[in-house]
Amino acid sequence: MNVIVDLTVSPFGVGLSVSKYIAACHKIFDEAGLKTNLHAYGTNIEGEWDDVFAAIRKCHDTLHEMGVPRLTSSIKVGTRTDKKQTMHDKIDSVRDKRAP
Amino acid sequence: MNVIVDLTVSPFGVGLSVSKYIAACHKIFDEAGLKTNLHAYGTNIEGEWDDVFAAIRKCHDTLHEMGVPRLTSSIKVGTRTDKKQTMHDKIDSVRDKRAP
Amino acid sequence: MNVIVDLTVSPFGVGLSVSKYIAACHKIFDEAGLKTNLHAYGTNIEGEWDDVFAAIRKCHDTLHEMGVPRLTSSIKVGTRTDKKQTMHDKIDSVRDKRAP
Amino acid sequence: MNVIVDLTVSPFGVGLSVSKYIAACHKIFDEAGLKTNLHAYGTNIEGEWDDVFAAIRKCHDTLHEMGVPRLTSSIKVGTRTDKKQTMHDKIDSVRDKRAP
Repeated sequence: MNVIVDLTVSPFGVGLSVSKYIAACHKIFDEAGLKTNLHAYGTNIEGEWDDVFAAIRKCHDTLHEMGVPRLTSSIKVGTRTDKKQTMHDKIDSVRDKRAP
Repeated sequence: MNVIVDLTVSPFGVGLSVSKYIAACHKIFDEAGLKTNLHAYGTNIEGEWDDVFAAIRKCHDTLHEMGVPRLTSSIKVGTRTDKKQTMHDKIDSVRDKRAP
Repeated sequence: MNVIVDLTVSPFGVGLSVSKYIAACHKIFDEAGLKTNLHAYGTNIEGEWDDVFAAIRKCHDTLHEMGVPRLTSSIKVGTRTDKKQTMHDKIDSVRDKRAP
Repeated sequence: MNVIVDLTVSPFGVGLSVSKYIAACHKIFDEAGLKTNLHAYGTNIEGEWDDVFAAIRKCHDTLHEMGVPRLTSSIKVGTRTDKKQTMHDKIDSVRDKRAP
């Protein structure tokens, strides 16, 4: 089952600058061969359900190993049976309707 | 790895009343032996990471089989290494500080 | 416009125990006369749109005054024109369908 | 108070294609002079707290007028007092740490 996911990782107890932890998760997603798109509040991820969630779990494990004591991920996961759709299809679909 | 999860399931393309789909997911969580607590915007779930996410995937599979063509789940998942904490501990911790 | 909201407040840069900050927000919601229900991952809030969002903003202002340097709120807000529905209606609707 | 927001609008009861409703909200954000960035799961919005939330409320009002009977918005809103930060700063901060 193919999924498009939006992930926001929030590390607690390690101060205010969290970008190195986000970067560590992106390394995991890249190594897993997942397509990603970084935005200001998180990351869009596209792939098979099991691959994506295994990578998210590995991200939690890795950040705890890096010393993060508390960690919350906010995940949106969408599945549909009516048609295939990629991350780029979703964006194009809105953009087309904004055109004058 | 023990997790506390908050799950909101949003079925699209099946009209406005979605409670029967939420109830179908709860049946899956009960059968998986997971602790749950229903609130007005979703469900708190407590259990092992792999058990909880297997149940969420089964919820997606089941709702698609019931005829839902498009489905988004919004998931918050928290892990911590500093101490063990249950759903009830989290609630009690806030309640204690609200006491006069 | 009446709304049912789910709010999760995440303070960063103040250590791992955040319950006193959640309790401070609840004090604001109580003083604003809003109906609330605390769960393990946040708070359901019921009221008029403008009252609820004024209270959420006051929660941000107050926590910054208490010394929280960085703060993220995750908010779900639902509106509907087909019928009136309370927090308790939403929960009862699912519970009815879980009954044997 | 300047905020960076992530907004996902979910219309129910209008079928599976929702992009025209998202486009209607973007028109509102543009008219309000807000900076936006569309991604596959929502929209990043940057501006003053009151301007951003007034625009989100107008988005709900407008979609109901367009015939959407039920509507949920998922909003992440971040504020910080330690430094000024834009949407692009947040993205650059992660990108810098991913560089080899």
